[in-house]
Amino acid sequence: MRVALAVDLGGTELRVALMAEGGVFLARDAAPTLARAGPEAVIDQIARMLGDMAGRAAGATILGVGIGAPGPLDPERGVVLRAPTLDGWRDVPLAALVSARLGRPVRLDNDANMAALGEWMSGAGRGARNLVFVTVSTGIGGGVIVDGRLLHGRHGMAAEIGHMTVSERDVACPCGGTGCWEALASGPALARFATAAAAQEFATSLRRDGFVTARDVVAAAAAGDALARRLLEQEAHWLGVGFANLLHLFSPERIIMGGGVSAGLETMRPAIEQVMRRRAMAAYRDVPLLAAALGADAGLAGAAGLVLEE
Amino acid sequence: MRVALAVDLGGTELRVALMAEGGVFLARDAAPTLARAGPEAVIDQIARMLGDMAGRAAGATILGVGIGAPGPLDPERGVVLRAPTLDGWRDVPLAALVSARLGRPVRLDNDANMAALGEWMSGAGRGARNLVFVTVSTGIGGGVIVDGRLLHGRHGMAAEIGHMTVSERDVACPCGGTGCWEALASGPALARFATAAAAQEFATSLRRDGFVTARDVVAAAAAGDALARRLLEQEAHWLGVGFANLLHLFSPERIIMGGGVSAGLETMRPAIEQVMRRRAMAAYRDVPLLAAALGADAGLAGAAGLVLEE
Repeated sequence: MRVALAVDLGGTELRVALMAEGGVFLARDAAPTLARAGPEAVIDQIARMLGDMAGRAAGATILGVGIGAPGPLDPERGVVLRAPTLDGWRDVPLAALVSARLGRPVRLDNDANMAALGEWMSGAGRGARNLVFVTVSTGIGGGVIVDGRLLHGRHGMAAEIGHMTVSERDVACPCGGTGCWEALASGPALARFATAAAAQEFATSLRRDGFVTARDVVAAAAAGDALARRLLEQEAHWLGVGFANLLHLFSPERIIMGGGVSAGLETMRPAIEQVMRRRAMAAYRDVPLLAAALGADAGLAGAAGLVLEE
Repeated sequence: MRVALAVDLGGTELRVALMAEGGVFLARDAAPTLARAGPEAVIDQIARMLGDMAGRAAGATILGVGIGAPGPLDPERGVVLRAPTLDGWRDVPLAALVSARLGRPVRLDNDANMAALGEWMSGAGRGARNLVFVTVSTGIGGGVIVDGRLLHGRHGMAAEIGHMTVSERDVACPCGGTGCWEALASGPALARFATAAAAQEFATSLRRDGFVTARDVVAAAAAGDALARRLLEQEAHWLGVGFANLLHLFSPERIIMGGGVSAGLETMRPAIEQVMRRRAMAAYRDVPLLAAALGADAGLAGAAGLVLEE
């Protein structure tokens, strides 16, 4: 049996797995990332957890290690350029360092690409040659498969889909710009709109004296709260605008939505699809919008896929 | 010597060429397209012109025929689905029909892709692995090379870059949408803004009693006309917004601008680049904006390249 070791390196959680060809997880483990302790400590943590996984692979051929990590990073050289959620990470040759520790080949790619690859290989994207994976949570990120290949671009920086300008509104984005898709449709954007709207509205179950989260809005809308439903309508509008753009730019066969805000996908679906139908040219209108199938496992599945696919 | 036959099928002009490996045109010809006469007449026209080109290829090995045609079309099956500028073209198996007439293999792709491929293989994109080609004229179209390959997507419909929404303005686009990049920054968009503005302004050399073209604006701006310069500033703004989006979406090493409006590129460059610097994340800011090098020959060079590249 041929297997891969997989790592999903996040700012809060470090997850590892042992995956067999065909996309079956044989073992997995997770721990809080030593994000404040610097790269050396985290690499040590990764090596120990992977060593343990490798110990469980008796009889199997371990093809290598795939790592998904926060960007920006250079997948060709295997270097994490910066990782805003990890202290002291600057130009860290992560692939080479982990490879030296484990004596195995290591491939590195960014976490959004890995989630796209995971959904493609063993989730909602299986069998497609073209898809766009969109994760809507703290930010909006994504990964794109076109013509049967993961899109990278210069320095692996393609598919920064959250930072396409979709509006002239002066809504600030974490990237420094204004009117980015992420500034209008991410979880924090929805939360900000909700907090402001709830403070003005008496007849709502949303809290009116403090910060409303995106999750609160989804839950209140599901329970029939009128304001929450209006807020999700607006969220759906922006999602529809962005999805329609992605249809024209990448011509996927499917759009796959993941991330925390996708908890509200079925509530928002009629409004999203109405906007997409209105804005997309006729030839793109039959492309389905699907919920991601792997949840938090997508990144691990994709990291393993980096190795198993070769 | 190995050569290719190339066809650039436009709504007004039909151009053919004989090109050698290395990108040298050995012969070429052009004629008004029999656009009103239906597919059969046009295919006959293509076959005759190509037969003449082939006759000039004595001693060379003709590898095949590459055709660039208006979209939407299916490059895999070689079928033109519709061609708004050619009467009666619906689901025309152009590649198979031309192949049957000439007894040679034929490849078909859309005209914007062919211009991108031409600039990549023998123009301003030479040597790059990632680039976006943008043509700004009657509409805004483009083609994208990522990771060393021409991007196609489902039905070859990727890179319809003119139809990404960049604004909430109620500016109608030929596609039926509003706020598309094309609706704000194409040649006709500039002309429409200019015609409206000139009617309100005494101190301008632009005509105030009739339709002002994009070409008029570029010429008047070059001659120092203040209103024309303001109009190009606005055009530059929208071009910068769109180009910044393309940086984040495709991560090219170069953006290459062609089409009629690119006559104003050097006048608009400072304003375009200012917008791009402001809107693009730091890692994308060093990507150069270049003028297309091949002009109207880009499509022919790309069509030949389809065959020569294999």
